[in-house]
Amino acid sequence: MLDARIVKILQDIVGKEYVSTEKADLICYSYDATQRRFLPDVVVHPGSADEVSLIMKMANAEKVPVFPRGAGSGFTGGSLPTEGGIVLVMTRLDRILQLDEENLVATVEPGVVTEDFQKAVEKVGLFYPPDPASLKFSTLGGNVAECAGGPRCVKYGVTKDFILGLEIVTPTGDIITTGGATMKGVVGYDLTKLMCGSEGTLSIITKIIIKLLPLPEAKKTMLVLFDSIDGAAQAVSAIIRGKIIPTTLEFMDAATIDCVRQATDLDVPESARALLIIEVDGDADVIAKQAKRIADIVQPLGVVETRIAETAEQSEALWQIRRSVSASLRKVNPDKFNEDICVPRSKVPDMIRRIEKIADAYDIPIVNFGHAGDGNIHVNVMIDGKVPGQQQQADAAIEEVFKGALELGGTMSGEHGVGIMKAPYIPLELSTGAVDYMKTIKRALDPNNILNPGKIFLDG
Amino acid sequence: MLDARIVKILQDIVGKEYVSTEKADLICYSYDATQRRFLPDVVVHPGSADEVSLIMKMANAEKVPVFPRGAGSGFTGGSLPTEGGIVLVMTRLDRILQLDEENLVATVEPGVVTEDFQKAVEKVGLFYPPDPASLKFSTLGGNVAECAGGPRCVKYGVTKDFILGLEIVTPTGDIITTGGATMKGVVGYDLTKLMCGSEGTLSIITKIIIKLLPLPEAKKTMLVLFDSIDGAAQAVSAIIRGKIIPTTLEFMDAATIDCVRQATDLDVPESARALLIIEVDGDADVIAKQAKRIADIVQPLGVVETRIAETAEQSEALWQIRRSVSASLRKVNPDKFNEDICVPRSKVPDMIRRIEKIADAYDIPIVNFGHAGDGNIHVNVMIDGKVPGQQQQADAAIEEVFKGALELGGTMSGEHGVGIMKAPYIPLELSTGAVDYMKTIKRALDPNNILNPGKIFLDG
Repeated sequence: MLDARIVKILQDIVGKEYVSTEKADLICYSYDATQRRFLPDVVVHPGSADEVSLIMKMANAEKVPVFPRGAGSGFTGGSLPTEGGIVLVMTRLDRILQLDEENLVATVEPGVVTEDFQKAVEKVGLFYPPDPASLKFSTLGGNVAECAGGPRCVKYGVTKDFILGLEIVTPTGDIITTGGATMKGVVGYDLTKLMCGSEGTLSIITKIIIKLLPLPEAKKTMLVLFDSIDGAAQAVSAIIRGKIIPTTLEFMDAATIDCVRQATDLDVPESARALLIIEVDGDADVIAKQAKRIADIVQPLGVVETRIAETAEQSEALWQIRRSVSASLRKVNPDKFNEDICVPRSKVPDMIRRIEKIADAYDIPIVNFGHAGDGNIHVNVMIDGKVPGQQQQADAAIEEVFKGALELGGTMSGEHGVGIMKAPYIPLELSTGAVDYMKTIKRALDPNNILNPGKIFLDG
Repeated sequence: MLDARIVKILQDIVGKEYVSTEKADLICYSYDATQRRFLPDVVVHPGSADEVSLIMKMANAEKVPVFPRGAGSGFTGGSLPTEGGIVLVMTRLDRILQLDEENLVATVEPGVVTEDFQKAVEKVGLFYPPDPASLKFSTLGGNVAECAGGPRCVKYGVTKDFILGLEIVTPTGDIITTGGATMKGVVGYDLTKLMCGSEGTLSIITKIIIKLLPLPEAKKTMLVLFDSIDGAAQAVSAIIRGKIIPTTLEFMDAATIDCVRQATDLDVPESARALLIIEVDGDADVIAKQAKRIADIVQPLGVVETRIAETAEQSEALWQIRRSVSASLRKVNPDKFNEDICVPRSKVPDMIRRIEKIADAYDIPIVNFGHAGDGNIHVNVMIDGKVPGQQQQADAAIEEVFKGALELGGTMSGEHGVGIMKAPYIPLELSTGAVDYMKTIKRALDPNNILNPGKIFLDG
């Protein structure tokens, strides 16, 4: 329990109505998408960078841990208040401050919901590509903190590729700006990119300067069914070697197709053992030509069928297949562990085969889908947590999956980050020297280890 | 003078033939493109990361400063041995270690010359876009350390956008890897991007993992002459708003055109007060269409003349105009201070007008050209250093230019970095808090302040 004095200081800083120690509120902010729960001592909704600064200064003086949080949609526990203390909910800061249509730059507060932002910029003919699956509720601040990805990253890059600058509050309570509204800038260290993906351990984001693109004129969606995962993977490489970088190159493996087929009235022949949903965007004439070229390029690679959407409704129907995956999986088993390994693009078939072997060895269903263009595979380990022993089996299987990805030159996480879920596995991927270098940075900037402690590195 | 014992240790580490204390060698490595000179005590050419590691461990034990260096083509003194000590010349590490055509990824050593690398990847149909003007001699290690740019960055991004991972030697001598060969990765802090542009102050780069693109099928060059800089600047915005992002959008102001006209037989009418060299790349049909659309878009903006190259020779002739700039400027005055401010794209005309006023006020010729698509202006202050007082006038003018760029929401450097040349001006751009945050990182990682001390921050 936190000292009442500290609660009083917080109330003085942000106003009484923005501080709560009510059990119901504490519970509301005790979890994220991992479904793990840790009760904070107090929930605070700051209304400005100045307030965040004062809170951080107090927290350092009083040695109270602070856990910044957006929508709490993370998959790895990055925002969980694992040590109680203060949850800092950033969602009051939810304004789009500036939309500079001439320079294709926006300035926003961290609590803006990703999809709301996308819609706002599209209204004026602009485009913000990163599209994490959580975009309907996740916030841009959270997207930056975790460096969120999404299907469109194969062509456009991840969140960090669109972040030009930030206003941040340092762990010790200074308000500083990093980067700026220009397309280039090399004055001092690139703190902007250092913050992207630092999972709220190096600063609290209070403002974000975002680079935008012109909204593509049109897009075209196609579905290609393959008789093997190898064909689908070869198709990915062949398309890119054919000088086309599609907006999305999403794949589903046989297990995923079977799940969707069981759960919906999906019209896909039994012979389809992998599929790609491919979208291209740009000039209408060009993408029509590109879609035809893609169909030609992939044809020799074991194609069962190719469907090119000619209307927006047909395109929507193709995407519906991808969107029905999550709900379909729940019918296999109630509990899902969604990992997001990433391997070099050409290693996707090897990785899928390894995962199939792991699923067999541990007798657990594992279904794979994701962003084939990036080699970013969402590995879904499906268990029933109530069945004794299944959780342990799943944990062991996941560790094998991580090891497999690393052996193939990949990483444990392409999008979700480390948080607390992958922290125990950090030594598998990073050398002691690399971890030391990172922890040296963390310790220097957060000498009292009060900003989101215990994340990424087990021992802070 | 360095202790003979230390020279002996260096010889034991890298071999006698790779260590020199000969005056002629010391002079060779005493300068860079700034033409400032600082004599080192010893020049070392290491042959491996292990050797660099041993050197750094010894340097820490003996408190000898170490100055890593590629080709020494930097414009801000980032590689100068300002405190004597050891110059670490990285050019022996010059191999392309792997060219993975399937995954569009290359692994190289830092001493590979940029253009050599571009040619090697183009031979197999791949593409490395960053193209600093120094590419014929600058090294990839130097490009990463400074985060080099170039004309093609408006479409493709700067060096850091192509760096997936690194092997580095830390200031204390550990060899660590950052990032990897995958398109996404969010495990731990993004040390890769932190190193990009850190000007050799946080690590010595010993290996670079580079993302490549498919080589565009074709390109098309056009020259557009405008009756004012405003027209040219509006054209830049109008083209991008027209959903075309050209590969290059280079501009030259009236002063630059006049210089080139005086020095060459440039066939450009007197009424042209600004010009854009625009190049688009991609599918041959698409770019022909784009070139026509660009011509239509810019036509109402005070166009004097538009020339579209129909052959490679015509394209070459258009680029020749841009290439003749540097030599032409020398005829104005012998000494050139080439600054590289960057402002929001729409502010280019305001900035040019400010620079014209500054040139008038200080009675110094200033000619401007550069990457209009990025708002990155190369401001060339032309003086004769032998004329008493001109150097001081130039210094004062440059400070005014920096202040102007910052007032317009820009930065003092888009490409060249800070080094020692812009270090005195750092407080103009970065807040004390931001500098403290950066210096905290530097101090934590380099506790003895022996790796490239005195760069970026005046007091290390």
